[in-house]
Amino acid sequence: MFEQLGLIGCGLMGGSFALALKKAGLVKRVVGYSKSPSTTEKARQMGVIDVEAPSALLAVSGADIVLIAVPVAATEATFKAIKHLVTPQMLIMDVGSTKRDVIDSGRRALREQIGSFVPAHPIAGREVSGVEHADADLYAGKQVILTPIERTLTIQLQKAVDLWTGLGCRVVKMSPESHDAAFAAVSHLPHLISFALMNAISGQKQGQDFLSLAGPGFRDCTRVAASDPKIWRDIMISNREELLAQSKIFQRNLHALEVMISSGNGEALEGLIEQASVTRAQWSMSKNNK
Amino acid sequence: MFEQLGLIGCGLMGGSFALALKKAGLVKRVVGYSKSPSTTEKARQMGVIDVEAPSALLAVSGADIVLIAVPVAATEATFKAIKHLVTPQMLIMDVGSTKRDVIDSGRRALREQIGSFVPAHPIAGREVSGVEHADADLYAGKQVILTPIERTLTIQLQKAVDLWTGLGCRVVKMSPESHDAAFAAVSHLPHLISFALMNAISGQKQGQDFLSLAGPGFRDCTRVAASDPKIWRDIMISNREELLAQSKIFQRNLHALEVMISSGNGEALEGLIEQASVTRAQWSMSKNNK
Repeated sequence: MFEQLGLIGCGLMGGSFALALKKAGLVKRVVGYSKSPSTTEKARQMGVIDVEAPSALLAVSGADIVLIAVPVAATEATFKAIKHLVTPQMLIMDVGSTKRDVIDSGRRALREQIGSFVPAHPIAGREVSGVEHADADLYAGKQVILTPIERTLTIQLQKAVDLWTGLGCRVVKMSPESHDAAFAAVSHLPHLISFALMNAISGQKQGQDFLSLAGPGFRDCTRVAASDPKIWRDIMISNREELLAQSKIFQRNLHALEVMISSGNGEALEGLIEQASVTRAQWSMSKNNK
Repeated sequence: MFEQLGLIGCGLMGGSFALALKKAGLVKRVVGYSKSPSTTEKARQMGVIDVEAPSALLAVSGADIVLIAVPVAATEATFKAIKHLVTPQMLIMDVGSTKRDVIDSGRRALREQIGSFVPAHPIAGREVSGVEHADADLYAGKQVILTPIERTLTIQLQKAVDLWTGLGCRVVKMSPESHDAAFAAVSHLPHLISFALMNAISGQKQGQDFLSLAGPGFRDCTRVAASDPKIWRDIMISNREELLAQSKIFQRNLHALEVMISSGNGEALEGLIEQASVTRAQWSMSKNNK
């Protein structure tokens, strides 16, 4: 049980975290700060936070737990803004989709206080953003990846594990490097592809006619294309090496299919599609995705 | 109201059509044929069809409406098998995802009886196949594209329009060429990309580890990758020119994003993502997709 959550960034992810902690009875008070005062005010009116803080530093004042839920590229500025009030007794987490860059900025800004920071990535989200979509159940049943480093304090890591478990999440620990490679493949690449697909179709002269005919397959393949541009700009640039490597592998596989289609080699094409189809069906049967 | 539906191919699409006609009270009897006798038997046991026919020709005998619901590449053989019983009083339709090749095979096989054939493409489907997933409501509320040619009989075209409207579908007429270009963009390309994405990830050494971390974004982007390999092999080869042209456009757009990521040009990258995000959000707001 925590006394006071300092919430920096009252959007979908941060707001849902505050609501989830309250629902689970894990926090007494939430003090919130957002860059935009109108967001902070809305969060208070909605009951997501209890008190509006006029700065990130003041949101941290008196907190025993801090969540930084800002676009990845804004993490370092946030660390700098709060560093004077960070103590070894405080648990600080983020929710960013990349981890190496966030840890690097933590090392630079927090220095000897880096041990309080437990880098976290809850595998949850929606294609909509903003506190108005905050949902106490956003994290329930989802995986949360924690990527501690050698300087992370054991006690804060344990508190983080207990907290997310208490919210109904499955906690997985891995290195920041493994995290960034894996999520380049299964998250950042699908987003990149989805953005490219959307632009490819809408950029054609007949794009609007085409879109009016699109059905459920198109709908699902492009759902994540509606994601927040600033957040995804930051993720893609901060994890660029891993992402571009994954994109190359994807394009090699696309090319292999194209060669079979172009040459009319039905048997080989069917083999490649079968491989995708079987793997996808197995994946959706596995317990992780129920 | 039709007397007798001759159903050739008792899978997901054909079976759902038979169930939908029955539910709407638009047919008295369904005589069904599938290449696999066990499928035909299962369809009868499930009440999808009333009578099992031992051949495609016998399924057509006595029918005033015929639905050909077989993989696109099997259409010509089906036309040849039934041509001796085709009459100008009969409405014949298919459900294929490509139209030019189906019409070409109809011209070759049906010759002067081509006028009875109204090429149809209902924009409905699921990533599962087989009569066991047949659903009387699969087509309700969906679009159906009809691509008549100059020799199509007006009376049969009108019957087709009335029938699909009676099943709760929105009927759109267009040329076979426009159809194939549009669906290369909004259906065949997303499938191609989805197959390539699935293979790209599962083909890596750490593929299984990566997949165990994948979340809802990945799930949606790859849903159609579980589609039937034979059906999609046929679609992709039969519409190869349009599909490969669309794939080129997609790869140009992917490359544009990669350049911005690689150079760290956040502003330009955000602009491209914003374009995708706004277009996608508008699309899902449009009435077609409610």
